[in-house]
Amino acid sequence: MKKISVLGSTGSVGTQTLDVVAHHSEEYKVVGLSAGSNVDLLIAQARQFKPTIVSLASKADADAARTHLPLGTKVVYGEEGLIAVAAETDADLVVTAIMGSRGLPATLAAIDAGKTIGLANKETLVTAGHIVMDRAKMRGVSILPIDSEHSAVYQCLNGEDRKSVQQITLTASGGSFRDRTRAQLEGVTVAEALNHPNWAMGAKITIDSATMVNKGLEVIEAKWLFDVTYDQIDVIIHPESIIHSYVEFSDNSVIAQMGMPDMRVPIQYALSYPQRKTTPTERLNLAQIGKLHFREMDFERYPCLRLAFECGRLGQSAPAVFNAANEVAVARFLKGEITFLDIERILETVVGQHSAVNIHDVETIAEVDAWARRMAESV
Amino acid sequence: MKKISVLGSTGSVGTQTLDVVAHHSEEYKVVGLSAGSNVDLLIAQARQFKPTIVSLASKADADAARTHLPLGTKVVYGEEGLIAVAAETDADLVVTAIMGSRGLPATLAAIDAGKTIGLANKETLVTAGHIVMDRAKMRGVSILPIDSEHSAVYQCLNGEDRKSVQQITLTASGGSFRDRTRAQLEGVTVAEALNHPNWAMGAKITIDSATMVNKGLEVIEAKWLFDVTYDQIDVIIHPESIIHSYVEFSDNSVIAQMGMPDMRVPIQYALSYPQRKTTPTERLNLAQIGKLHFREMDFERYPCLRLAFECGRLGQSAPAVFNAANEVAVARFLKGEITFLDIERILETVVGQHSAVNIHDVETIAEVDAWARRMAESV
Repeated sequence: MKKISVLGSTGSVGTQTLDVVAHHSEEYKVVGLSAGSNVDLLIAQARQFKPTIVSLASKADADAARTHLPLGTKVVYGEEGLIAVAAETDADLVVTAIMGSRGLPATLAAIDAGKTIGLANKETLVTAGHIVMDRAKMRGVSILPIDSEHSAVYQCLNGEDRKSVQQITLTASGGSFRDRTRAQLEGVTVAEALNHPNWAMGAKITIDSATMVNKGLEVIEAKWLFDVTYDQIDVIIHPESIIHSYVEFSDNSVIAQMGMPDMRVPIQYALSYPQRKTTPTERLNLAQIGKLHFREMDFERYPCLRLAFECGRLGQSAPAVFNAANEVAVARFLKGEITFLDIERILETVVGQHSAVNIHDVETIAEVDAWARRMAESV
Repeated sequence: MKKISVLGSTGSVGTQTLDVVAHHSEEYKVVGLSAGSNVDLLIAQARQFKPTIVSLASKADADAARTHLPLGTKVVYGEEGLIAVAAETDADLVVTAIMGSRGLPATLAAIDAGKTIGLANKETLVTAGHIVMDRAKMRGVSILPIDSEHSAVYQCLNGEDRKSVQQITLTASGGSFRDRTRAQLEGVTVAEALNHPNWAMGAKITIDSATMVNKGLEVIEAKWLFDVTYDQIDVIIHPESIIHSYVEFSDNSVIAQMGMPDMRVPIQYALSYPQRKTTPTERLNLAQIGKLHFREMDFERYPCLRLAFECGRLGQSAPAVFNAANEVAVARFLKGEITFLDIERILETVVGQHSAVNIHDVETIAEVDAWARRMAESV
């Protein structure tokens, strides 16, 4: 019986993780859940999975939940509560499906506690890649990616000598606006931007898909996860999202991972690794799909991806600034404060005004993050 | 330095094997070569690679070669000669790139001598799958497939638990006539049949691609190589031959192997396994290719593939009969004796008249093979 804590259990990856757990309830036991302010859903999840501890964003949320939870459930809240769910249980595996930079301290706490990490929090590696990977190595902790692209690469690397990796190619659907020119992006609405062609995901990541910021964050993650250079990472447009990513080896042989777009496959893989277990997902039928399309990434069309590569290559605090500025810009777009194309303008401006500093601890990241947010709010 | 013998060194896979060896001459040493009657090419190969022993089809061929070979090269011939090259050298690996049923005794001799097998002789597993696999298991010998499809599957299985294999899908280009209806196959010429869209291969295998017999033989090989049932093997039409085959696992995750169609990649893989080494091949550029197409296999259009599955499921001597009858039918087509569609008629007739017998030794296979050839000549 593998014991699991889920950080961000009420979000898209969180609920799908619990779906996978429920499908193999004889294999997995949920011991901890953390959520933000979706108290009702957290209560329902706690009743179903009976964790020993749950955490919510605030004391008010925690108090509202308390009397509705199974007897004996420990209720905590805030940043400390999140860390308790991440590190202070007997979980073997912690799924970090929480969004944003709050995921970093919790992930580091889980690593320090020796937990295997099922990584779905992009910011962890984007803002603190070398800190996290060094810490995981030191503690002998595995970081198992849950993003479909990184899970694909991880699967392609199974049984292979990492030294023979020539290139990693992340596939990108192109997002909700992939068939529009830049001119046609003027004045697009929030509702249009939220209409992703292939994947059902949260709002933030759906916007990030449309701007290609999401792929940029994935590129930076891939650099850390797979210990490659940015020159070894390529991005290709693949509208159908059937090939989830692929790896070219030194012999020019390419291994790809494919499947219907369904996050429950990479989630299950992280949960059961190195084994595979059945998933309640649709089987791939390539004959029925008929055609797979590919086209070169257009860095003019998607300047945020170019910027992500630049920030990645610059290193130090640049990726953290890119990420924080983007979080603010997307939030402002979703609130209707700015246009879709303003997102990239804000990113360019904030990154352009930043002088990268060395990142040696979480506090420096927090400072840089705060600076970038203030800038992104004021542009 | 890995020592290698090549059976069938002057054929398509043989010459490409030597091309791969030449590309990594510091890694590989050729110790034995066998050819049929292409004396000139064998001499050139022997001068370049300086094997200790070479074999030709007949005493006359051997005598013709002798004085042109590097001093000290041992020259042998015939079936015994072939077995000497397969088993009586200090080779670590024997590449069985010889065509037809003559490959079987030589492969068994190499296995008995403890050599790793780079298997490119289809007939070995088609006619004697259980004998060969049992013998290899008993001797602790690895059988590394060189066919692009089986190499693809082998690569996809890297690091995976064989028990989690759900389905193996072999891709088929559809051969030289893939866009013709059955009616349009009446009266096609030998030259048309030899014009394969993707792969440069020998005449026999090119015809076998057009009739889909080749894929049928591959299905039977896959059954033995990967220890699956026929229900677990699927064939899909994929005209571009970029995805060389793929494996679906129990979680519905699919791992595929891709690349430009070039036999030197699977050959190199068998030579360097479990390592990968650079190959003098073109890199895959999916964006440049743009589209990959897939369609369901049509067993009405390709009745020989249906027949291969039937023979495979029937087991015992049925696959050997299917294979021998096909060798004769293809030879008769290439000589202009029969039409293209007669090939499948001969196969149906010969298989239909055969009562499958248990295959317990090579002699029984030889008898069945001879019967099938006589039948196929007389239909």
